[in-house]
Amino acid sequence: MGHQLKHAISPTRSENYPEWYQQVIKSSDLAEHSVVRGCMVIKPWGYALWENIMQQLDTMFKQTGVKNAYFPLFIPLSFLQKEAEHVDGFAKECAVVTHHRLEQDETGLLKPSGPLQEPYIVRPTSETIIGESFSRWISSYRDLPILINQWANVVRWEMRTRLFLRTSEFLWQEGHTAHETESEAIERTYMMLDLYADMVEEYLAIPVIKGRKTKAERFPGAVDTLCIESLMQDRKSLQTGTSHFLGQNFAKASQIKFQSSEEKEELAWTTSWGVSTRLIGGLIMVHSDDDGLVLPPKIASAHIVLLPIIRNEDHANRVMEYTNNLAKELSNQTYNNKKIQVEIDTRQIGGKHWDWIKKGVPIRVEIGPRDIDQQAVFVARRDRSAKEKESIPKNQFVQTVASILDDIQKNLFQKALDYRNAHTCKLDDKKSFYDFFTPVDDNEIHGGYALSHWCSSEICEMNIKNDLSVTIRSIPLDAEPEIGQCIFCGKPSNYRVFFSKAY
Amino acid sequence: MGHQLKHAISPTRSENYPEWYQQVIKSSDLAEHSVVRGCMVIKPWGYALWENIMQQLDTMFKQTGVKNAYFPLFIPLSFLQKEAEHVDGFAKECAVVTHHRLEQDETGLLKPSGPLQEPYIVRPTSETIIGESFSRWISSYRDLPILINQWANVVRWEMRTRLFLRTSEFLWQEGHTAHETESEAIERTYMMLDLYADMVEEYLAIPVIKGRKTKAERFPGAVDTLCIESLMQDRKSLQTGTSHFLGQNFAKASQIKFQSSEEKEELAWTTSWGVSTRLIGGLIMVHSDDDGLVLPPKIASAHIVLLPIIRNEDHANRVMEYTNNLAKELSNQTYNNKKIQVEIDTRQIGGKHWDWIKKGVPIRVEIGPRDIDQQAVFVARRDRSAKEKESIPKNQFVQTVASILDDIQKNLFQKALDYRNAHTCKLDDKKSFYDFFTPVDDNEIHGGYALSHWCSSEICEMNIKNDLSVTIRSIPLDAEPEIGQCIFCGKPSNYRVFFSKAY
Repeated sequence: MGHQLKHAISPTRSENYPEWYQQVIKSSDLAEHSVVRGCMVIKPWGYALWENIMQQLDTMFKQTGVKNAYFPLFIPLSFLQKEAEHVDGFAKECAVVTHHRLEQDETGLLKPSGPLQEPYIVRPTSETIIGESFSRWISSYRDLPILINQWANVVRWEMRTRLFLRTSEFLWQEGHTAHETESEAIERTYMMLDLYADMVEEYLAIPVIKGRKTKAERFPGAVDTLCIESLMQDRKSLQTGTSHFLGQNFAKASQIKFQSSEEKEELAWTTSWGVSTRLIGGLIMVHSDDDGLVLPPKIASAHIVLLPIIRNEDHANRVMEYTNNLAKELSNQTYNNKKIQVEIDTRQIGGKHWDWIKKGVPIRVEIGPRDIDQQAVFVARRDRSAKEKESIPKNQFVQTVASILDDIQKNLFQKALDYRNAHTCKLDDKKSFYDFFTPVDDNEIHGGYALSHWCSSEICEMNIKNDLSVTIRSIPLDAEPEIGQCIFCGKPSNYRVFFSKAY
Repeated sequence: MGHQLKHAISPTRSENYPEWYQQVIKSSDLAEHSVVRGCMVIKPWGYALWENIMQQLDTMFKQTGVKNAYFPLFIPLSFLQKEAEHVDGFAKECAVVTHHRLEQDETGLLKPSGPLQEPYIVRPTSETIIGESFSRWISSYRDLPILINQWANVVRWEMRTRLFLRTSEFLWQEGHTAHETESEAIERTYMMLDLYADMVEEYLAIPVIKGRKTKAERFPGAVDTLCIESLMQDRKSLQTGTSHFLGQNFAKASQIKFQSSEEKEELAWTTSWGVSTRLIGGLIMVHSDDDGLVLPPKIASAHIVLLPIIRNEDHANRVMEYTNNLAKELSNQTYNNKKIQVEIDTRQIGGKHWDWIKKGVPIRVEIGPRDIDQQAVFVARRDRSAKEKESIPKNQFVQTVASILDDIQKNLFQKALDYRNAHTCKLDDKKSFYDFFTPVDDNEIHGGYALSHWCSSEICEMNIKNDLSVTIRSIPLDAEPEIGQCIFCGKPSNYRVFFSKAY
């Protein structure tokens, strides 16, 4: 497109946030719905983000002694039943495998055949199947701890799906550990939450709140669910990671026993923790603007795109030579201990920079004959307005490119933090609380985090949910004791919790 | 174990090769059968090999312009039916998902519920589901080529399973490309075969034969299947990678059409290519010996294990300090452009080196007080007899460790190549051919590759298969034209093919 758009994405965030989200994904070519109900196709530009997330987390996991392994996709139906809360949590959204072959009927149509004696479910999570292995691997306290992670696909049948945020199949990692003592398992639960928080803040530039779920929001079968929560630009909260202390519940269900150093038979203490492709949904919703995707440099698959502008064939060779040399010089620079990734868009069409704005590449560089004459480059940053471009001497740009990327990374985090702070408030009376979460019209972006007192009653929690679709996102881990009154019932409360609407 | 074993693995290869294979896997802790029929658990020591294979292949794919993406696990039943040969090839071994929830019956037992309108099959391969995406992504010749790879799990229901070699679920990569012209697609098919051959020979130290499958052995739906085949130590052949030229068959089935530069509507030309966790089965069978696993350094997850020998508590600090310093010095060295990976086994038990022999670590280093006095280390190589150990000055060892690893890598390849050459023969009369493939007793390791003439008749091919369980592994790509007579029927033949028993 040769003309200047007001915004590259239509509708804008304020016009229709959910539709804006779909359009950002579409115009950046991250993913699409597939023909299979509720399943998505993650396209190369989207999958590259997941690859970078995996690589970073995998390195961090291994630094804490975790090793990767792989367990079966299928779980015998009877396994799910071993833990009572667990089966309640997942039975309603399972893909069930009942046959192991296909046969053609008399009309030539394929029909399932070879019924299985016991149906399998496609794993929605792997506590029970991994627990079965742990029960065989562990016999003495000397075998502990066991620290395992699995990169895998999981299936939870969803009726209403949204790309990255809620799909029937998604990609994730699930860590599973078994320990000799309760305190060691609890320590691991916190350690992994901290690791997730560090990764999400440092690499995805998304500020997080560390907290504990209420009983109603806990993982089915867990004793304690820790989580990180992040505020999106529609002021809803997204759970960006969870770490569960499972106590001895799953050890009991799977008979994970060991002989202690005092030669007594004891049940192990287990944990599980995970993040998923949902993180990409969060990444999109926190940073993107009305021109499309905005990628933090530390997670972007391309840091810089070079856009040679060839309006006249006479210049072509000269511009391309300058561009290729610049690409080489930039590729020799490092950012965040990795080589800087450079794309070149040689298409001879007008307005091609808009494609890269929509794809969220942190730095765009336009190169025309005039820039070459001045041994300069024309630089635009994705964290600034699309119109803002600056001519920089080429050598200076090459030498400072890593610090520009670093500045973008920090700027995106600070912007997101400012946004969250601007939309987090301590609310102490019921009317303000209800007003805070009630929009004037349906499309209006409203609310945020209300940090309010809660009496610990599940009834108040449920009433608020029923009235406002607002849930307790977490009891913050750094909450300072403070005497107050429950925002719903007025009874005494000792601490504030984070309320918000959520994904 | 403090005593010296004759061999660490029982039975030995010559005593019972299939059982030896299971025992090598068990004693090296690579993988195990799971409770789920035909599915395996890949344990950390085994998964680390897959991680190294993935990392290396992924780098090589990307150098040829391939990008990763992710497609749904489920394939609508009707999709499989789009390509006639394809459905015949996979219908008999499919996991079929027929329900999307579970419900408790009156006795409290879980039963499948929520029947699906159209059943899904769990992907056995993804040509049809990826083809559907390609048909939407491609509209003009300018959109071509599309070069996609997916790292994924696939399911092919197997009745008789063997760890790594044949399991109902396995991990693999599947590349899928679409091209404007036939010649470009064929070029890609060969390019990927060459890439696999390079990777398997250089990293896994497994010699390969590049060839073309006969019609009977082709991928269901392919026009041409290229493959690499490798000889195991029981003289059976293992297919270690395949690259398929699919012609326009799948483009027709999925309607992958584009407008050509001459503005005509044309069908795209597609390819697919893959390797799987089967490669680990090959790695085990080619290099391991009667003491257990032998890992080529370029694919080993640990290059060196340090074994401090502490027989007396007085020495403990001194030995551990020396060991830790040595570990640091070794970790600063690089091999194959990566940091050398060092393990330390601090257990105070006798004979602990046997655990690492069985795990296949390329270099073992024993460290006792006497070695420290001499500023030396006691070094053993996994490619040599377990008894063969050598005292080397410590500094010399650190400085030459990369070249020792390189020597082990080359030595393993050469051993495997010598073995293959010793068991490949040109056979020109039927009796020698039948004798070659007939063992004196059931357990006897026999046969190898017979390079013999074949008249191109599927009937001769089938007769040989029925008589001897011997198949044509491939028509070698580098075959020189040679006039001869079919080994079965005596009719004229223009080239030799590789016959052998196979996995």
